[in-house]
Amino acid sequence: MAEFTHFNEEGRAKMVDVSEKPETVRTAIAHSSITVNKEIYEKITQDKMKKGDVLAVAQVAGIMACKKTSEIIPMCHPIPLTGINITFAWEQDGDNYRLEITASVKTKGNTGVEMEALTAVSATALTVYDMCKAVDKGMVIGQTYLVEKTGGKNGDFSRKEKLK
Amino acid sequence: MAEFTHFNEEGRAKMVDVSEKPETVRTAIAHSSITVNKEIYEKITQDKMKKGDVLAVAQVAGIMACKKTSEIIPMCHPIPLTGINITFAWEQDGDNYRLEITASVKTKGNTGVEMEALTAVSATALTVYDMCKAVDKGMVIGQTYLVEKTGGKNGDFSRKEKLK
Amino acid sequence: MAEFTHFNEEGRAKMVDVSEKPETVRTAIAHSSITVNKEIYEKITQDKMKKGDVLAVAQVAGIMACKKTSEIIPMCHPIPLTGINITFAWEQDGDNYRLEITASVKTKGNTGVEMEALTAVSATALTVYDMCKAVDKGMVIGQTYLVEKTGGKNGDFSRKEKLK
Amino acid sequence: MAEFTHFNEEGRAKMVDVSEKPETVRTAIAHSSITVNKEIYEKITQDKMKKGDVLAVAQVAGIMACKKTSEIIPMCHPIPLTGINITFAWEQDGDNYRLEITASVKTKGNTGVEMEALTAVSATALTVYDMCKAVDKGMVIGQTYLVEKTGGKNGDFSRKEKLK
Amino acid sequence: MAEFTHFNEEGRAKMVDVSEKPETVRTAIAHSSITVNKEIYEKITQDKMKKGDVLAVAQVAGIMACKKTSEIIPMCHPIPLTGINITFAWEQDGDNYRLEITASVKTKGNTGVEMEALTAVSATALTVYDMCKAVDKGMVIGQTYLVEKTGGKNGDFSRKEKLK
Amino acid sequence: MAEFTHFNEEGRAKMVDVSEKPETVRTAIAHSSITVNKEIYEKITQDKMKKGDVLAVAQVAGIMACKKTSEIIPMCHPIPLTGINITFAWEQDGDNYRLEITASVKTKGNTGVEMEALTAVSATALTVYDMCKAVDKGMVIGQTYLVEKTGGKNGDFSRKEKLK
Repeated sequence: MAEFTHFNEEGRAKMVDVSEKPETVRTAIAHSSITVNKEIYEKITQDKMKKGDVLAVAQVAGIMACKKTSEIIPMCHPIPLTGINITFAWEQDGDNYRLEITASVKTKGNTGVEMEALTAVSATALTVYDMCKAVDKGMVIGQTYLVEKTGGKNGDFSRKEKLK
Repeated sequence: MAEFTHFNEEGRAKMVDVSEKPETVRTAIAHSSITVNKEIYEKITQDKMKKGDVLAVAQVAGIMACKKTSEIIPMCHPIPLTGINITFAWEQDGDNYRLEITASVKTKGNTGVEMEALTAVSATALTVYDMCKAVDKGMVIGQTYLVEKTGGKNGDFSRKEKLK
Repeated sequence: MAEFTHFNEEGRAKMVDVSEKPETVRTAIAHSSITVNKEIYEKITQDKMKKGDVLAVAQVAGIMACKKTSEIIPMCHPIPLTGINITFAWEQDGDNYRLEITASVKTKGNTGVEMEALTAVSATALTVYDMCKAVDKGMVIGQTYLVEKTGGKNGDFSRKEKLK
Repeated sequence: MAEFTHFNEEGRAKMVDVSEKPETVRTAIAHSSITVNKEIYEKITQDKMKKGDVLAVAQVAGIMACKKTSEIIPMCHPIPLTGINITFAWEQDGDNYRLEITASVKTKGNTGVEMEALTAVSATALTVYDMCKAVDKGMVIGQTYLVEKTGGKNGDFSRKEKLK
Repeated sequence: MAEFTHFNEEGRAKMVDVSEKPETVRTAIAHSSITVNKEIYEKITQDKMKKGDVLAVAQVAGIMACKKTSEIIPMCHPIPLTGINITFAWEQDGDNYRLEITASVKTKGNTGVEMEALTAVSATALTVYDMCKAVDKGMVIGQTYLVEKTGGKNGDFSRKEKLK
Repeated sequence: MAEFTHFNEEGRAKMVDVSEKPETVRTAIAHSSITVNKEIYEKITQDKMKKGDVLAVAQVAGIMACKKTSEIIPMCHPIPLTGINITFAWEQDGDNYRLEITASVKTKGNTGVEMEALTAVSATALTVYDMCKAVDKGMVIGQTYLVEKTGGKNGDFSRKEKLK
């Protein structure tokens, strides 16, 4: 049975020793979303709202939060990230619109970047909420999860189905 | 029609001027969750896993991230928070278990703390993921949303139904 | 003769006591610029470069750095900023183009926000450099200075001439 | 019997609600020290070592860490400090020399600044260690404690005896 | 005679060049303590206080501060830590109780982690103080020092006697 | 024609992938300045002002900001710096005095440190402004630019003429 690795011999949290793990290229892709009403959707996407600016700010926020992951997640190793990319797609959802948010993160290091990718999409979604909340506070951030990871001795991970 | 307030006359992002808004007590409650498999649930909640430690770490993470909100969300005002409380509840969900995460945040200031509450629950959920991901990377962070806010001139907000 | 206020009785640096200064609305406006070649100017401003994105990122950087001022400038007081706005203008300068950067910052507190405005324009200019340096590393950040301040007991300040 | 105030109804940590506490001027003084050998003492204090630089750097470190207190101490409230002053004194201690470090911190807020003063002296002592450790790693940071606090409803505190 | 290495040719502080130092596994162990009265000891260790929570929070604080070392200590190199572990032990000390705090830190890099270990134990002790200060502000943080370091060209260090 | 490298396929900002770039020693030198009036110059340089302290604080600020570069510049990679050195020189400029500020930064990594050197000189100049602004708010920070870079596949860069 797999063991939690974040605990020391006293049963308390520690930052696990990864100094013997190989330094390889590692990637992770995470996904989140935020559902907004039609008014917000139109303001974000149409010319009225200087198209794209909400997304531009949210994307910068996602990238900067990604670099802060080890400051936000207590047992997460500080790791020099080599690449971060955040992309967007809109899907209609009944009367509402869902902004799909995907982050890919890459490193050449001795531990994975799953948390970095998850933190990036979370901060991106939170920023969209912040920039639009004057119009409607009822927006909902959708399910947030790891889509894929590669690299490292524990094998790759890939989620089959898409959630929302 | 409500206007986005985060944009300046050039249509670019700015941090809006709140210096004329009244300094009042303001509260916000936000909610998130994370669904884990039975093995993780048992490790977290039973004696084997030094019950509560995962949650203790996650809670500290949520509180510390809450204080970092204005560093994570670009247009968010720095605001001296006066209180933060994060609580947990477990619900069974088929074969899985869902950890319900609620954060209440309070300030005495001239802008609301919705983003602080949302950031707190997000960081809490991300930390649970981090501490348990050696067992299963398939955990999913559930919907994240504002439950309630009070204080400020724009009126209170309260979400009726509970999401998951 | 005016005295430096950042030094203690041992002649060493301290963060001066402002607890008796009145809590009033204070504003500051600072200015910087960055001179780029024609190729960069065109890439930033024409459709080819998804117009405005460099400036959008630089602006977010300026706002976030502004909030970090007391972390960057050692003797600067942490102060809850109430508003930040960064604006841009282009001026031709021989064969080159100069991006004029202006930041206005506002607070309701017991110390001024000159450093916050200066930090905002500096970070904005540095970010433009970063985003364009793959094209030309010869860009030069122009003079950086305080344009105006209001509020506080020491009187207002206003620079007459414009520098570049 | 006094109760711990940092725990919520589930017995977990929270950042306690101080929004009803009065906003008054509050001060705290903390003390630490570091004992160094004669060689280090002479290098710091004599002309050879550009007298005072180690202390100048350590003092800046103490002031900057003081402003970071709520990022370092999880349940500590973010609070806008109004003044920080760090002073030094040398005392001979057998063959060694003890650098006495005192920090006074002031705020006008609704919670005390004991942790800020304690964090300031700790960071100052750690920085002296860092700057001199190439000469001797055997330096010892002495006892660190609160000397005095004033302001707030719980009454003032003053430690009678001096520790080392 | 050993030279201070943190100063440049002008006698001012610099962050020394370590790019030619070998990248090897390096470890450091540091020690601190905090002496508390019987009431606090019992609240922390007995069931009344949900045993362990003060220590759990303090430990998370120590680990997170350890990762922040290069932000707190001015001339300290940023270095990707590979492991951090903090352990506790109680010793009776007359009517009082002393919590012994030990941190072990590991990296694979070109500079040592002494400061990281010292910062970890300091932040841990400060957090215990913060969580218990509502009961008694007279707690004293004990001597803080390096116990051991390994790795790097300057040889290992090991302190023989135990201090308190 | 050189392409901007900070944009993804949607034309939005990303942190470019450097994981395939070779890990080599890289250096960068940047320059800035600040022009002050005679009164400030004399206070900084003569005995009255405990000579050098303004510069000591400014230098620490420059070094600490240098380490924060990837937090300030959104698309900048976090990179473990191996050395930072900041030097000063005074030049008379009519009735005023110009403090010349030079920063050299070194790393062994897979991306350059131009932004780190530029951020270091900017923060140094801003700190001089902050420490002297009680005497005169009319100080002007001079042109800020890259002097030289070495290392990396894109070739070295060296600016011929000196700017002010």
